[in-house]
Amino acid sequence: MAIQDLFGKPLQAVNIGLESFSESLHAQGTEAVQVDWRPPLEGYVELTHAPGGVDIDAANAEALERVRTSRPLLVGMGIAKDTIPGMGERMILHAGPPIGWERMCGPTRGAVMGAIVYEGWADTYEEAAELAASGEITFDPCHHHHTVGPMAGIVSPSMPVFIIKNETFGNVTYATQNEGLGHVLRYGAYGDDVIAHLKWMEKTLYPALVRTLEMTGPIDLRSIIAQALHMGDEVHNRNRAATSLLIRQIAPALIETSSKQVAEKVLRFIDSNDHFFLNLSMPALKAMIETAEGVEGSTMVTVMARNGTDFGIRVACMPDRWFVAPAPMVAGLWLPGYTEDDANPDIGDSSITETTGCGGFAMAAAPAIVRFVGGTSSLALSVTQEMYQITVGEHEFFTVPVLNFRGTPLGIDVRKVMASGICPFINTGIAHKKPGIGMVGAGLVRAPRKCFEDAFAALRKEFGSE
Amino acid sequence: MAIQDLFGKPLQAVNIGLESFSESLHAQGTEAVQVDWRPPLEGYVELTHAPGGVDIDAANAEALERVRTSRPLLVGMGIAKDTIPGMGERMILHAGPPIGWERMCGPTRGAVMGAIVYEGWADTYEEAAELAASGEITFDPCHHHHTVGPMAGIVSPSMPVFIIKNETFGNVTYATQNEGLGHVLRYGAYGDDVIAHLKWMEKTLYPALVRTLEMTGPIDLRSIIAQALHMGDEVHNRNRAATSLLIRQIAPALIETSSKQVAEKVLRFIDSNDHFFLNLSMPALKAMIETAEGVEGSTMVTVMARNGTDFGIRVACMPDRWFVAPAPMVAGLWLPGYTEDDANPDIGDSSITETTGCGGFAMAAAPAIVRFVGGTSSLALSVTQEMYQITVGEHEFFTVPVLNFRGTPLGIDVRKVMASGICPFINTGIAHKKPGIGMVGAGLVRAPRKCFEDAFAALRKEFGSE
Repeated sequence: MAIQDLFGKPLQAVNIGLESFSESLHAQGTEAVQVDWRPPLEGYVELTHAPGGVDIDAANAEALERVRTSRPLLVGMGIAKDTIPGMGERMILHAGPPIGWERMCGPTRGAVMGAIVYEGWADTYEEAAELAASGEITFDPCHHHHTVGPMAGIVSPSMPVFIIKNETFGNVTYATQNEGLGHVLRYGAYGDDVIAHLKWMEKTLYPALVRTLEMTGPIDLRSIIAQALHMGDEVHNRNRAATSLLIRQIAPALIETSSKQVAEKVLRFIDSNDHFFLNLSMPALKAMIETAEGVEGSTMVTVMARNGTDFGIRVACMPDRWFVAPAPMVAGLWLPGYTEDDANPDIGDSSITETTGCGGFAMAAAPAIVRFVGGTSSLALSVTQEMYQITVGEHEFFTVPVLNFRGTPLGIDVRKVMASGICPFINTGIAHKKPGIGMVGAGLVRAPRKCFEDAFAALRKEFGSE
Repeated sequence: MAIQDLFGKPLQAVNIGLESFSESLHAQGTEAVQVDWRPPLEGYVELTHAPGGVDIDAANAEALERVRTSRPLLVGMGIAKDTIPGMGERMILHAGPPIGWERMCGPTRGAVMGAIVYEGWADTYEEAAELAASGEITFDPCHHHHTVGPMAGIVSPSMPVFIIKNETFGNVTYATQNEGLGHVLRYGAYGDDVIAHLKWMEKTLYPALVRTLEMTGPIDLRSIIAQALHMGDEVHNRNRAATSLLIRQIAPALIETSSKQVAEKVLRFIDSNDHFFLNLSMPALKAMIETAEGVEGSTMVTVMARNGTDFGIRVACMPDRWFVAPAPMVAGLWLPGYTEDDANPDIGDSSITETTGCGGFAMAAAPAIVRFVGGTSSLALSVTQEMYQITVGEHEFFTVPVLNFRGTPLGIDVRKVMASGICPFINTGIAHKKPGIGMVGAGLVRAPRKCFEDAFAALRKEFGSE
């Protein structure tokens, strides 16, 4: 029996099914988001070749191919100071582009103060703030150490980190364990409860996961992300499926290698925190995209990251430079008792997910996320469609069922952002602007145009077309 | 910051986002399925009132409300003979409408033979077949005992069953534990491996789950199904998310109440079988829809079920009658080595999912399922749209994110099937037509028109409008 027989006649390429789909959306009063042509950003000129006759399209194709073929595996864990390259004894890593204490936003300051007390470098949060301001602590971006951190993104020397290895190219990336929601360091909260929880993560969760991973062997994060995109996640602000799949994969080995009490507590903790996998999706996607760094002539964006004060991007052919602009405010859904007046500007390295074709770029795969970050399911569909206009290509392994299994839009091309006037779309958590408080909401934001304008100007200069 | 600001101007109700969505599908050569008007089925007349002036629309609204407000909970487990009402000592329950050994299809016969050996009523499968043919075994439909079984749907007295209670109305339903894929009884396979696995499920899995449920208390299956529909399941042939959520919910209590060895083995088994939750979604949905049985004047379908020979339906206002037609062949994707020549006709009680607004009716929530059952993601969307034309209403708790969280189409109205000519759409597994072999594929099928024609004729007679 052929599938056509189900319908009583041959199938035709007429769009009535999808029209009724859109009619249904209209019938319910949904706005579809206008995805239209915009004038090119000011200063746009066509860039086709880098010095030495390097074809930029070919360079971007090479960069894309590296990212597409990367296979990130969770291979183990370690303590930051013993594991992350260049991590110093009195160093604290933070999200986003470089920044000193004096310009740090409230939540980053709060998280730094918490980390200093957690490390035992100070006894009180006041002393911690003084120490942070004294110049005795070195602050460095996570991204300078193959590391990514959500929100404030603080990594201090004693914190355990996941080790992710890109099996295809051998590069290695790192991220801490996710703390859960609520009163947590990454949102700028500190206090005895925050520190005690971090200590539990170091003394109980981390050793249990180390034992588990020794038994399971490497865990294929690309496979989990690919599956999660078919299960309503976009692995930035929706990680419920990915966290579930991770639990399924590690639970038997966890039971075998830990006491009942520890295994049960670890499972209850991970089950309580659908964002647990975020701290694996982020370094996995970092491990994929950083393979494009240094590709001569490539205009692909390899980093978008925010420290809560500045938003910064980096570009493949100029891998060591940051192009920064003020971090924008986020259009949010607010937790009870909070408003936009409480919000810090956009913050965190988690936009590595969008940089690598997930998060906001994959929202069509995760329409249910709009209940958490705002917007409508038609917005979720149209945003992914829109991002194809500014990307070099598409993922091979990360696909969107509702778009007929099309690969997600991958590899932001600075030139296409300039030509289209379309800025990258990001969904994100929102921290309170004051230190010590925590999460106030989640929402939607665009990367600032200025980052791309400055990067484009630098490319023109670099490529001699100024 | 308002969400409009993200887009640089006020949002407008223009469908460009979704047009680009459909263009993308076309660009990739996808057919959209034609969902069009069809002439009413032969013999259609308008039915508006039942005897005594009962308004049929009002009756269907009452039936719908009962189903919508039902809340099925997994409350415990038991052994079939001690638990299922009316289960006799030498009784075997089967899927679909009533049938005797002489008319049973190959997979049902194979499963009966396996169950007889499992029960110890015969030592060989030849003896089992003789016993089954002798008249000493009573065969009864699962549906006559508030029970549902996938594929052959065989329940024999010693098998453990889940007990699902509808908290809203108090009715109770039952289903066996899912065996996994491969060489399994429900697909008509038998043999030492099949029996040994059933014994493990009785002696190890069942007691472990009983202990676990005693600790967790009732598990809200409506909540799991609602979440799973936001995670790419339709809880008929895609239960990966629902099974994951179940694992998360039971794992800690399982660890606490079982030995390490048992807990690990049980978790590995459930993890190996994404269909594990099917045997919970089915009785949960049965518990919801059976509350419509007996609503005077309601033309809502309360059962669609197949025994592999016949396809049968039942209607709310005539709850004890079956309207049967030959079970249709399924348009399938075939496992390696098999073709449609190997396939048995449509089989199983699992179409209770479609009857209650899930499965094929909720495929828009689960576009990735087309890789398992065939079709395209546009088909998945359009089929759900089409089913709204033959249903009384929509689910309140079961919603489809991509349709802007519209409730799934719920409650097939025999009158609407007749008026529209649209028959219910079902996705399903496919068994080999011979006993003893097992699964050969999965696919898509429509319920036979004749069931609805006969039901409609009976309604006309019942309602005096003949």
